[in-house]
Amino acid sequence: MGGLVVLLSGGGGGAKLARGLLALLPPEELVVIGNTGDDLEWYGLRVCPDLDTLLYTLAGRIDRRRGWGIRGDTFAVLDALAQYGEETWFRLGDRDLATSLLRTHWLREGLSLTEATHRLCARAGVRTRIVPMSDDPVRTRIRTPQGELDFQTYFVRRRHQDPVVGVRFDGIEGARPSPGALDAIYQARGIVLGPSNPFVSIGPILAVPGIEEAIRASRARRVAVTPIVAGRALKGPLGAMLRTLGHRPDAVGVATLYRGLVDVFVLDRQDAELEPEIARLGMRVVVCNTVMRTSQDRRALARRVLRALEEDA
Amino acid sequence: MGGLVVLLSGGGGGAKLARGLLALLPPEELVVIGNTGDDLEWYGLRVCPDLDTLLYTLAGRIDRRRGWGIRGDTFAVLDALAQYGEETWFRLGDRDLATSLLRTHWLREGLSLTEATHRLCARAGVRTRIVPMSDDPVRTRIRTPQGELDFQTYFVRRRHQDPVVGVRFDGIEGARPSPGALDAIYQARGIVLGPSNPFVSIGPILAVPGIEEAIRASRARRVAVTPIVAGRALKGPLGAMLRTLGHRPDAVGVATLYRGLVDVFVLDRQDAELEPEIARLGMRVVVCNTVMRTSQDRRALARRVLRALEEDA
Repeated sequence: MGGLVVLLSGGGGGAKLARGLLALLPPEELVVIGNTGDDLEWYGLRVCPDLDTLLYTLAGRIDRRRGWGIRGDTFAVLDALAQYGEETWFRLGDRDLATSLLRTHWLREGLSLTEATHRLCARAGVRTRIVPMSDDPVRTRIRTPQGELDFQTYFVRRRHQDPVVGVRFDGIEGARPSPGALDAIYQARGIVLGPSNPFVSIGPILAVPGIEEAIRASRARRVAVTPIVAGRALKGPLGAMLRTLGHRPDAVGVATLYRGLVDVFVLDRQDAELEPEIARLGMRVVVCNTVMRTSQDRRALARRVLRALEEDA
Repeated sequence: MGGLVVLLSGGGGGAKLARGLLALLPPEELVVIGNTGDDLEWYGLRVCPDLDTLLYTLAGRIDRRRGWGIRGDTFAVLDALAQYGEETWFRLGDRDLATSLLRTHWLREGLSLTEATHRLCARAGVRTRIVPMSDDPVRTRIRTPQGELDFQTYFVRRRHQDPVVGVRFDGIEGARPSPGALDAIYQARGIVLGPSNPFVSIGPILAVPGIEEAIRASRARRVAVTPIVAGRALKGPLGAMLRTLGHRPDAVGVATLYRGLVDVFVLDRQDAELEPEIARLGMRVVVCNTVMRTSQDRRALARRVLRALEEDA
């Protein structure tokens, strides 16, 4: 069966699923579209946390315990900045910093983010394409009762403790889908919305003008994997965010957000009782373990996802 | 006795003398004018090797064995760049990189190099002013039989093995002296040409339009400390450079270059037999140990230099 499998992904769960898919697919049959709404300028460096988490995960170098950064990385640059009296709540390891240093250098030389990402992948031996959702800058902004925060301030500095009353994507109106993203969707035999936060990971990707439209218009099978299990995101603030944004804080809430956009919803077996409600939204429901603790878990979930792409509705 | 002591310095010997002077003078009475001809753009970062050697030396953090960088620094960023397939002949440590990252960030925010250097000094607890020779970019270029090389390629990458047939300072015509440099010279009671290479360390500073003129016009006592002992620079290629550029490869060769510019020449005791020849150039000669291996050496030399500034000719 020809065609690409296209995965939309933020950092955490989506990246793990990407690794699982890569274990089952030839690398050139998988394209991962990464969220860049979390990107930041850090001391003049362009840092792309989600793209880099994808890169490190696919290269087998991710720090699994932390869920970000490179295993065994050190923080000497950060320590030195702290000694100079700088704030260092954004934790960028030394080797992780090298990635951003190279990327920024290449961007200044005129490469697009797509090209710079492709080159980083090639240099790291990752043969699967990781493409940014857009080459244009988009910045996720979080509205809280205390005011609007940039994403990393909300997420890292304030440890996602603020109630989220709104999310917007600065620059989204002028952002064009990266050429790789749109091409991949056109050539997809299957499109997977990874188990990432629908508001701040999948949301920015879908909000790039043209991407959601292309997915809706696609004849590929479209599958979403639940990012929430038993009413809680495995990591991060999704449960609370669903609530404060006025949605049901469970898989039904997420499935409702994806209504009309996906054909199949992969639900965790801990939430099996929600199956009828999600089915009523017009989706086929696959119930399985979606919690990826081991490489076996990742591969098992990826296998279920690939099967869902291939089965008739 | 009022007024400033102004030291013109490259990285190595000049920085050690600065440390010696600082042990004897109140910090606000010493101003060090640093060479920026060695500066480079490295992955988009503005690296100032001589200013940073001065900073680290005065902060007591220099790696003495290497003569550059921060004691105990690591090279994780560099290792990561090498893993990405980059050339890493220019060795920038992680903590050293943090200095350049901050400087570059501040320069992009609109600070001048003078202001950024001042801020780094303040953050590092260095109360003596280190001022760049100029806020404008100047780049030392080395002419060799193989063609022209930028300074770091000549010095680091090719380990200063090429015969030097010419030196020029790219951008020097348009470079203005930094305000701090010219002010300090005007307020000097003494001006010291440190024991640094006259062609590539002191030379660029003097070549900034206005600086040599201001020193010549100054009524302050002017002292040069020999950068060459027994026909050899303690570090670096000065001996060979004097020869290939058509000068005597000894202290007389250096003194000849400074003829008319300095009143006193500090000669190493190993070269005492050269005293009459240097005296004939119209300089008073002080003979003493100029080799700085210990803090006692540094202080003893600094004491001789300060005494030379105060004695009548």
